[in-house]
Amino acid sequence: MSEVIQLVDTLAVGVFAITGALAAAERRLDILGFILFGTITGIGGGTARDLLLGTDTIFWISQTRYLWVCIGASVATWFLAPMLNSLHRVLLWADAVGIALFSVLGTIKALQWGSPPVVAVVMGMMTATFGSILRDTLLNQEPVLLGPEIYVTAALLGSASYIGLQSLSFTAALAMPLAMALAFALRASAILFDLRLPKYDPQR
Amino acid sequence: MSEVIQLVDTLAVGVFAITGALAAAERRLDILGFILFGTITGIGGGTARDLLLGTDTIFWISQTRYLWVCIGASVATWFLAPMLNSLHRVLLWADAVGIALFSVLGTIKALQWGSPPVVAVVMGMMTATFGSILRDTLLNQEPVLLGPEIYVTAALLGSASYIGLQSLSFTAALAMPLAMALAFALRASAILFDLRLPKYDPQR
Amino acid sequence: MSEVIQLVDTLAVGVFAITGALAAAERRLDILGFILFGTITGIGGGTARDLLLGTDTIFWISQTRYLWVCIGASVATWFLAPMLNSLHRVLLWADAVGIALFSVLGTIKALQWGSPPVVAVVMGMMTATFGSILRDTLLNQEPVLLGPEIYVTAALLGSASYIGLQSLSFTAALAMPLAMALAFALRASAILFDLRLPKYDPQR
Repeated sequence: MSEVIQLVDTLAVGVFAITGALAAAERRLDILGFILFGTITGIGGGTARDLLLGTDTIFWISQTRYLWVCIGASVATWFLAPMLNSLHRVLLWADAVGIALFSVLGTIKALQWGSPPVVAVVMGMMTATFGSILRDTLLNQEPVLLGPEIYVTAALLGSASYIGLQSLSFTAALAMPLAMALAFALRASAILFDLRLPKYDPQR
Repeated sequence: MSEVIQLVDTLAVGVFAITGALAAAERRLDILGFILFGTITGIGGGTARDLLLGTDTIFWISQTRYLWVCIGASVATWFLAPMLNSLHRVLLWADAVGIALFSVLGTIKALQWGSPPVVAVVMGMMTATFGSILRDTLLNQEPVLLGPEIYVTAALLGSASYIGLQSLSFTAALAMPLAMALAFALRASAILFDLRLPKYDPQR
Repeated sequence: MSEVIQLVDTLAVGVFAITGALAAAERRLDILGFILFGTITGIGGGTARDLLLGTDTIFWISQTRYLWVCIGASVATWFLAPMLNSLHRVLLWADAVGIALFSVLGTIKALQWGSPPVVAVVMGMMTATFGSILRDTLLNQEPVLLGPEIYVTAALLGSASYIGLQSLSFTAALAMPLAMALAFALRASAILFDLRLPKYDPQR
């Protein structure tokens, strides 16, 4: 199981690195800018999680393949991006995949380190969103937290449903893909059907 | 004494969570946005402090009531905010209370972990201001560090006067409320009388 | 050797503190704003490095002279800045010196803590640039990562060439100044001759 988790984790880092490199492409940065934003977006969420959990070492310091995945994904994006019709559409969907994977993986890691459920949910949401928040803040773009779309909600669904499924005694091998699918389904619906939560309205 | 500190600490987290939720109301975010900004603002300063001090665990990971206080305060703000005449006025004064409490509490925690006085002052200032800095940066608003008002100065007064009172051999039970009162009095005066420090002027 | 490193490290912190205080001068902040931005810029990069490396204590917590250097450099800048013809020019060159020193020092510290080479390069780049990124983000300015100039590239050259020289069995006492000189030479050329890497161009 832990090998599957490592594989999915590496995949999620690569997917987020692509979104960072695509954001760099939208801003017409140079190749080093692609690598920087790819790497920051790819490892940002997990870094914040590991720092707060107080793990022995940050994941990409003990296992350098994560850095190489970020660098490779960013360089590949540099060469492949000109063939894409819409950078933004690819960015949006890669981001949706990344959120789904990381929200559950972050929750699993927090539980492994002994976090109580509410903390594990917070860690899952943070792992899934912090890389994108860094990316958008450093790019001086409207941060995703302010957007009207259901973004953080999808991460919350991924984390919380994993905890819920586990407490219903689903095995991790079953709960993980199910929770990821739920998070992805919600995010995908939000993109396709423009779903949103009701906004604060002082007149109500 | 340590129970009093825990109580005041919980209160300060709740007060800052309210300012985060009010900032979310000003931006017309949804209920999850209220909770996110409430939580980030409520626990942001203490999280940075604990990370830098290298405490065994971050305070809200070992004691989850802090998260529940943030969530509760944010949800309550969602329902009560429409009854307020001026969100901004309440935000300003809640912030003033939070700064006064956190600047002293942060200093106390740093001293407990063996920090020298100058580090304890920095930790107090950071505990008091970092949540608001995160809130404003993520909301894309003019960060409070740039404002002309005496904001950080009040946090500095709270931290430094606690250290000063202690070295004059005041007991913690006396120095704590006194230093908090001083910090609040300075911040309140700044709000009421528009006090400010002289700005840099190259012509002087 | 370790005394030389400490000396150069203190110098680098002071140089970056000056850039932070100069940025505060450009925004006409008050004296506390000078000290805040001086300190944040001076210790920001090393703080991020130490947090991620998981050192026993953050460098400025165990050795408070770093804080005093930041405070002193900021106050000195407050008094001396009005005598400068161009704040921005001094800021630019002080920044170039700081990048050169910190990129190599950060790499050395990471290697001392057992990081593999690719991690040590990342740590060097982060030590050299994170203080400036914090400074610019908190000042609401175009972050340096987006600039067209060769900024991060110079930090990369400093880190990577130190690793390269070491693997060619240069002693640290020789590799350190050489790598710093290379990083500074690249950054200086970029400022003087407006060098830049080619930008992403979807039409190529």
